Amino acid sequence: MATLEEVTAFIAEEFPQTKCVVQAVGNGGSTLLHEVGVNELRPGGTVSGPTMMGVADVALYVAIHGEPGITPMAATTSLTVNFLRKPAGDKPIVAECKLIKVGKTLVVGEVTLYSQGTPQPVAHVVGTYSLPPRKA
Amino acid sequence: MATLEEVTAFIAEEFPQTKCVVQAVGNGGSTLLHEVGVNELRPGGTVSGPTMMGVADVALYVAIHGEPGITPMAATTSLTVNFLRKPAGDKPIVAECKLIKVGKTLVVGEVTLYSQGTPQPVAHVVGTYSLPPRKA
Amino acid sequence: MATLEEVTAFIAEEFPQTKCVVQAVGNGGSTLLHEVGVNELRPGGTVSGPTMMGVADVALYVAIHGEPGITPMAATTSLTVNFLRKPAGDKPIVAECKLIKVGKTLVVGEVTLYSQGTPQPVAHVVGTYSLPPRKA
Amino acid sequence: MATLEEVTAFIAEEFPQTKCVVQAVGNGGSTLLHEVGVNELRPGGTVSGPTMMGVADVALYVAIHGEPGITPMAATTSLTVNFLRKPAGDKPIVAECKLIKVGKTLVVGEVTLYSQGTPQPVAHVVGTYSLPPRKA
Repeated sequence: MATLEEVTAFIAEEFPQTKCVVQAVGNGGSTLLHEVGVNELRPGGTVSGPTMMGVADVALYVAIHGEPGITPMAATTSLTVNFLRKPAGDKPIVAECKLIKVGKTLVVGEVTLYSQGTPQPVAHVVGTYSLPPRKA
Repeated sequence: MATLEEVTAFIAEEFPQTKCVVQAVGNGGSTLLHEVGVNELRPGGTVSGPTMMGVADVALYVAIHGEPGITPMAATTSLTVNFLRKPAGDKPIVAECKLIKVGKTLVVGEVTLYSQGTPQPVAHVVGTYSLPPRKA
Repeated sequence: MATLEEVTAFIAEEFPQTKCVVQAVGNGGSTLLHEVGVNELRPGGTVSGPTMMGVADVALYVAIHGEPGITPMAATTSLTVNFLRKPAGDKPIVAECKLIKVGKTLVVGEVTLYSQGTPQPVAHVVGTYSLPPRKA
Repeated sequence: MATLEEVTAFIAEEFPQTKCVVQAVGNGGSTLLHEVGVNELRPGGTVSGPTMMGVADVALYVAIHGEPGITPMAATTSLTVNFLRKPAGDKPIVAECKLIKVGKTLVVGEVTLYSQGTPQPVAHVVGTYSLPPRKA
């Protein structure tokens, strides 16, 4: 288990480019907020798909660090994204992640993405991370 | 059907931020090359997952524009990514896309991603796009 | 909207081979129970993957019939299954389905599968169905 | 590496209910044929989704046994299926599997499913299997 401060410091080092702000971590989940910049917009004023996938990926990574504890070598093995609704270009993306299984070598979690303040999700992600072998 | 020049011009307008260079399009597929910049690296000198997902998304989009023709309102509905090997941080990502089904409302395609010059793929993507209803 | 009785009668006709019993339907979701027979076991006394995928597929189908109403031509377009834990061979599979998006042409939902009486899920499924065009 | 005879004998033991006939195995792939019975049909004379997912699952399992060799404890961790076209109810399903990555703990492969004699695929599957830790 790691605290919000520990995870935030760790993410700043591991993902120096990310704009994700960790709002909560623990209990097998995480909540992140990601401001949308001009580079992340698509014509029509909506948020690009890779931006949303990136936020979901970080949300899973953060949740894992909250649960088994800081695990630097955890690596994404798969992500399945369903895009549900057009996100608002002028609102931050909020990610709510919940781990479904924390195994010895694989973690499976889901992430629901919202435009801040809108109850209907804009995307749904299921992802798996592989964990490095633990030393005895 | 659209030519390489038409698709390149269209992508420049639709994805002004993309660094993807279309190398081939047609016959239900596309080949793209994407130089890797500092912002797309992860610690350890590897390419970030969202960068690869973004390239795959554009490769599908390009292949669709080559096949039924320029279709501005095509929208990604789902992407499933399997990360296979660590991409090299100092080599461009090459994407080879092949459409599996071009239906009236849904297109399904797969994209294999490589680090340029390396025969083993770094990631595999299956994606679906929805097409806007055609006018009679 | 359709009642539990209407949906049960409809499923009996559409899926004559299914052993799924609909326990609840409505509010954008469904709950099903599926007894496990000898043909659905794998060596080691666990339930086969295709059995679980089949139950999830029916759960999505049932939830759709509860929500927009009976929709015979709804067809599965994709399913992503993550197998999480070994299901018990001597307990029914319980499926809890929740629709994430009900659009005009696409429905996205998730299904969590359990061995009856065990709180930890054995599998997680995200699926999409395409709906037939509605007549005006 | 295992021969066609070895794999066929192994599958008969592991999947006693399967109707899949292994036609080829090796070189990181497999080809299977599956006769369609009455229980596997859906109204309209088409093949049920779980039947196709089951065939794809066995095709991956067979390909793995051909490649690293017989590996009884290999277990499916995820499957993503895209249904592409209506399969013919009166023709066997043919599965062509190709492994994309054979790692130490994870194998990723894709399977393309056809109605025998029809060049257009009816479904596409990407699946991952976890391998048991190897003894030194």
